[in-house]
Amino acid sequence: MSTTWVPGADAAGYGADNLPYGVFSRAGSPPRVGVRVGDRVLDLAGALGDPEFSAPSLNPFMARGSTAWRATRAKVSGMLTAPGGRAGAEPHLVPLAEVELKAPFEVADYVDFYCSLDHAENVGRIFRPGGAPLSPNWRHQPIGYHGRAGTVVPSGTGIVRPVGHQPPADGGVPAIGPSRRLDIEAELGFVVGTPTSLGRTVPTGDFAEHVFGVVLVNDWSARDIQRWESAPLGPFLGKSFATSVSPWVVPLDALGAARVAGRDQDPPPAPHLRRVADWGLDIAMTVRLNGEVVSRPPYAAMYWTPDQMLAHLTSNGASLRTGDLYASGTVSGPGRDERGSLLELTWDATEPLRLADGERGFLEDGDTVAISATARGMGGGTVALGEVTGTVRPALS
Amino acid sequence: MSTTWVPGADAAGYGADNLPYGVFSRAGSPPRVGVRVGDRVLDLAGALGDPEFSAPSLNPFMARGSTAWRATRAKVSGMLTAPGGRAGAEPHLVPLAEVELKAPFEVADYVDFYCSLDHAENVGRIFRPGGAPLSPNWRHQPIGYHGRAGTVVPSGTGIVRPVGHQPPADGGVPAIGPSRRLDIEAELGFVVGTPTSLGRTVPTGDFAEHVFGVVLVNDWSARDIQRWESAPLGPFLGKSFATSVSPWVVPLDALGAARVAGRDQDPPPAPHLRRVADWGLDIAMTVRLNGEVVSRPPYAAMYWTPDQMLAHLTSNGASLRTGDLYASGTVSGPGRDERGSLLELTWDATEPLRLADGERGFLEDGDTVAISATARGMGGGTVALGEVTGTVRPALS
Repeated sequence: MSTTWVPGADAAGYGADNLPYGVFSRAGSPPRVGVRVGDRVLDLAGALGDPEFSAPSLNPFMARGSTAWRATRAKVSGMLTAPGGRAGAEPHLVPLAEVELKAPFEVADYVDFYCSLDHAENVGRIFRPGGAPLSPNWRHQPIGYHGRAGTVVPSGTGIVRPVGHQPPADGGVPAIGPSRRLDIEAELGFVVGTPTSLGRTVPTGDFAEHVFGVVLVNDWSARDIQRWESAPLGPFLGKSFATSVSPWVVPLDALGAARVAGRDQDPPPAPHLRRVADWGLDIAMTVRLNGEVVSRPPYAAMYWTPDQMLAHLTSNGASLRTGDLYASGTVSGPGRDERGSLLELTWDATEPLRLADGERGFLEDGDTVAISATARGMGGGTVALGEVTGTVRPALS
Repeated sequence: MSTTWVPGADAAGYGADNLPYGVFSRAGSPPRVGVRVGDRVLDLAGALGDPEFSAPSLNPFMARGSTAWRATRAKVSGMLTAPGGRAGAEPHLVPLAEVELKAPFEVADYVDFYCSLDHAENVGRIFRPGGAPLSPNWRHQPIGYHGRAGTVVPSGTGIVRPVGHQPPADGGVPAIGPSRRLDIEAELGFVVGTPTSLGRTVPTGDFAEHVFGVVLVNDWSARDIQRWESAPLGPFLGKSFATSVSPWVVPLDALGAARVAGRDQDPPPAPHLRRVADWGLDIAMTVRLNGEVVSRPPYAAMYWTPDQMLAHLTSNGASLRTGDLYASGTVSGPGRDERGSLLELTWDATEPLRLADGERGFLEDGDTVAISATARGMGGGTVALGEVTGTVRPALS
């Protein structure tokens, strides 16, 4: 097992196997890029003497491309694991308790996919009872849509309950009011580093040349608003009020030991969507509601893998920008306690969760949701992702 | 009638009543902000001595807010209409023929609405024959969805025919191939200048404090890809390959004489969507295919007005950023020759257009589409918008 000299870091999932990137600020100082190790942040501009890391976002670094990502990771890893690196790194380690974590990158476009078979089937059964649970296209391509990039917020941002149109009963007029079905979606997000030009497609085999790393995503959803507005153009205000992302971007290179084949696909995907490498990811997610574990979604159960999502997203020639974020869609496994949304966990509030502080169909004001995850590291340790949290605030009057 | 001393400008729709903003570059020089007058561009950084206009986009200027927009317009108008302004302006007028026009602003988020009753009913009849033409929500709120900001391209950009999944016959497997139903959507786009913070709503009455101006939009659409992919999350790759915008942003203040009450609405809209001022716009659009006029969509026929779109977009607390672009959706009037898409003009290719160079159901490679528009100006002249053009290129193999 590869280890770091920073005390306690490896055991906590933020050791030598992880080294995720984020943006932090100390009191009175502008934000800059750092790498988390244990309960500290390595100030990269200082440690590496590279002013590009004084930027308030990861975008300039991510735009450099995969060769630069790997070289930087090797340097940082050397400083934090080799005894000879300690003298250079130690002056630039800042306790996490002394920093404020910021949004790690500027989001260019945000796309949300719908890649869990179990989730799609559950939602189909709930929203379209009596119909086929899956739309006819679902097994042929990763279904997705664009979300609002401007309301992607860092972990910890309060989530104000949105107001909107409620589905009317029996063809009546919709009432306007605070959402009564405020939900979460536990997802994994993929952050694009290397851009492409318009008209260029990205084959599945080029995934790791374009995607820099992953974050945890909570795609907050107002199910009542969403259900009423979605025909025929899809979700809009039921999603656009907020999407939370975790503060640490875990590089793809830290997830090598988590790579798995990905779920069998029937029918076989179209040629441009065929997998040429293992980009299923064995990442164990945990969803906590007010501190209680309510679900453990297994990312390995996803039907469409992220290389396939990226190939699909660019198959029409759409260009990529540094900072593009595409999320997996709700991660749900086949088990009842593996579902990544309250919609599924409570079957649209018909089977409420029993928590220490009462029953829950959907979220109540004051509820705090925290999503975290772990994967196996390349050196035999643990890689922690996350966490992404948010507390529901009352609707504005 | 207010006139400018620039010869021919007023008669051409780019005179004293218009003064739209764009971004241009001369050979060997970086892009900067200008105002079009006749067949010239006024270099604002030079003419006003304000280095902010040396920026390669309108965003910094738009972010200054409506007081600054009005002050700048008054100054520019004074220079271009009063004899005393001529000496200061003339050295900074550049012939259009000597410049390259760029994307006028950096797009933050792009939202596409669906605000024409005639368009929505036509599409409903074509895509869902036998069903109700309008979804139940349509008359209660402006339906919209997020598009891809990163593929909003300036007028003149070639449009590569996208490749994608074709709807399969009778439950079979979809073929992959170049779209055979490549279409246009003639739209008006609204450009946000003044941002808001998360959780803030924008009442209809605040529309003109946030929206800087308008552009023409061609929301290129691959109808076959769109039709197959859209259930249940809406359009994605059928739209995301390209959206073209005109090079000149016409300030709202240039459209005062075009303001009309907007179409009657039944049922009356919810309180937060009620109009408090006239923001219907009497703008006459023209769509040309290979030079022939194929449609004259009347913007005044739109059901939902742009103040209502903005109020809806922010009604869930979603924040605005400088550079947000929201488009009206296809502008179609009730007449057969007022439809803003080929889908409607040819009724899904069942009634082809007869052009000088042959019949058209949808677009063929090499076809050029140009959308232009005019409105009445405040001084009694004409305000020209546009134009936004694009030529279809063959699909990549």
